[in-house]
Amino acid sequence: MNAKLQWLRNKMASLDLQGLIITNPINIQYLTNIEAEGIFLLTRKENIYITDSRYIEQVHSTLTLFDEIIVYDAHDVSKEDYENFFLFCENVGFEEHNISYAKYKEYLRKFKIHNFIETEFIIEKQRMIKDEEEIHNLRKACEITDHCFNYILSYIKPGMTEKQIANEIEEYYKKRTDGLAFDTIVASGENTSKPHAVPTERKIQEKDIITIDMGCKVNGYCSDMTRTFFVGEVPEAIKPVYDLVLKNQKQVGEQYKDGANTRLLTRMVESDFKLYGYDLVHSLGHGVGMEIHEVPYMSHNSDTQLRENMVVTNEPGIYIPGKFGVRIEDTVQITKFGCINLTKSGKNYIVI
Amino acid sequence: MNAKLQWLRNKMASLDLQGLIITNPINIQYLTNIEAEGIFLLTRKENIYITDSRYIEQVHSTLTLFDEIIVYDAHDVSKEDYENFFLFCENVGFEEHNISYAKYKEYLRKFKIHNFIETEFIIEKQRMIKDEEEIHNLRKACEITDHCFNYILSYIKPGMTEKQIANEIEEYYKKRTDGLAFDTIVASGENTSKPHAVPTERKIQEKDIITIDMGCKVNGYCSDMTRTFFVGEVPEAIKPVYDLVLKNQKQVGEQYKDGANTRLLTRMVESDFKLYGYDLVHSLGHGVGMEIHEVPYMSHNSDTQLRENMVVTNEPGIYIPGKFGVRIEDTVQITKFGCINLTKSGKNYIVI
Repeated sequence: MNAKLQWLRNKMASLDLQGLIITNPINIQYLTNIEAEGIFLLTRKENIYITDSRYIEQVHSTLTLFDEIIVYDAHDVSKEDYENFFLFCENVGFEEHNISYAKYKEYLRKFKIHNFIETEFIIEKQRMIKDEEEIHNLRKACEITDHCFNYILSYIKPGMTEKQIANEIEEYYKKRTDGLAFDTIVASGENTSKPHAVPTERKIQEKDIITIDMGCKVNGYCSDMTRTFFVGEVPEAIKPVYDLVLKNQKQVGEQYKDGANTRLLTRMVESDFKLYGYDLVHSLGHGVGMEIHEVPYMSHNSDTQLRENMVVTNEPGIYIPGKFGVRIEDTVQITKFGCINLTKSGKNYIVI
Repeated sequence: MNAKLQWLRNKMASLDLQGLIITNPINIQYLTNIEAEGIFLLTRKENIYITDSRYIEQVHSTLTLFDEIIVYDAHDVSKEDYENFFLFCENVGFEEHNISYAKYKEYLRKFKIHNFIETEFIIEKQRMIKDEEEIHNLRKACEITDHCFNYILSYIKPGMTEKQIANEIEEYYKKRTDGLAFDTIVASGENTSKPHAVPTERKIQEKDIITIDMGCKVNGYCSDMTRTFFVGEVPEAIKPVYDLVLKNQKQVGEQYKDGANTRLLTRMVESDFKLYGYDLVHSLGHGVGMEIHEVPYMSHNSDTQLRENMVVTNEPGIYIPGKFGVRIEDTVQITKFGCINLTKSGKNYIVI
């Protein structure tokens, strides 16, 4: 059995869970490398993956004997099989955030479960701390993102549309990685005032402000970086906002370290923005791993300690509706005494 | 209020629902055109969309007065507001397949709901029957898919990899549509034996068999088509299987019409495959619309009547593990007396 699965079984024992039903496909992939549709059961003694005939071949070619995972075609699992999987289990855990209410009811009945226990992101919390191989993949994804950004700065010319630039980024990534980690944001002019802008047919103009939020996937792991930059010159009206965002991104970045509290970090930026009459309208950051957004979330609602080898973003932004917005974002690795920027593109005024 | 929303309100009345919480983003988009993260509430008298600050601007620019939808920033909704939304509602519906168990519990508490009622795909069922504009978009997506397939037949040469071909399809779509409806399947040689193959670095060889399953999106609506074809010649060993799949695809297609039962249609193909020693390992088809897979599902587990202006696939396939597979799929529109193929690419032996 692999180390991740062994860790999870120990965790289950400490929580007095004799069984566990895992329904989040990302968690299943994390534990088993299986990328398919199915559910993963940890029973008293066995690890069981139930899928359907579409995926059986593919799943078998992913697994090795070492994995100690039994694969079933759902078609061959009888009513009695389902009832026997957790036969002597007092408590069976489930992923309450990753199972629909309808499936919850179905499983309760089908598996004849005695106590069905919410597990509160048990595996997501395990995933927060990245091992060496995971860090390697994240680092690689960030490195390619830096290269891509550098390339795209030389590519952009007035007259190009936002969509065209987004496509070029996708092309770049597709040749070198597993593809996009999320839909690229390319926003220009007043579109930058929308934090989640979708690329439009708007053409880049002289003296434009441009925000690009981009990331790719390498071996299943994501990168995430945002830069706001300028065509020809930096408009005087934007400078104070850019400076304020950058100052905060750097200041708070210095506090990203093992033991730091996510709420306090967020408050730091919020307070400074407030002093100048601005709000931090979205969260300060989020974990990055197999998912582009994962725990820990960094906002005034969260209350988590950062830990060594978490990988998270640092992305303050200010948005002035109908006018413009500025966001600066890095993906960073938390260490004992600080953090390491995995995305390393320059952050002083960038003018193309 | 638009016609779709009016229809839904009438349906609610007939089910004695005084309120409804809609959490499926596709259903929200269908009813409101809003593409964002949020929830949509139908209270006694109001239509309320609750989102967060990231999307407020974008949502406001989507809606018109005619929509009669009130938009809230979740940040500004108080505990009391939540408790008041469904104050005089005896029964409030929810989407049990599109809400996590955790959210179900949270909403029950937060909205102080009296009777929380499962609505059994109420909106998905409404979405099964396409209106004129939806059919127009589906038709367009299928037309471009035919053109793309035609182009790709001339593009493929021995020595190219499956990935390269999949990328070319994506490029084609991206220039002409909203992009892919799903990850394109390009499988060659023995990879065709996996119904859900992922494109690999395998190079196309002389005398190869190739299966491509492809589709794009136009104004939010999908197309879905599969063809299996050959390089240089059709191997004698494959001909009987190809012929059997094609015969069944045509025969069952003639039975696709208003009133036909999805289970019986599936059984028709299953029985004929069985006669020759083969299984139908996946379903015969599925609805196509804003989602690439939606109700009605056509399998031996389903028991639905096809209705005029449903749009569904017809996709029998035979897969011989480790050897090869053949699937032929069209997207079709159901009419009173038959069906109209929306994808029209040829289905006799295709040799490149």
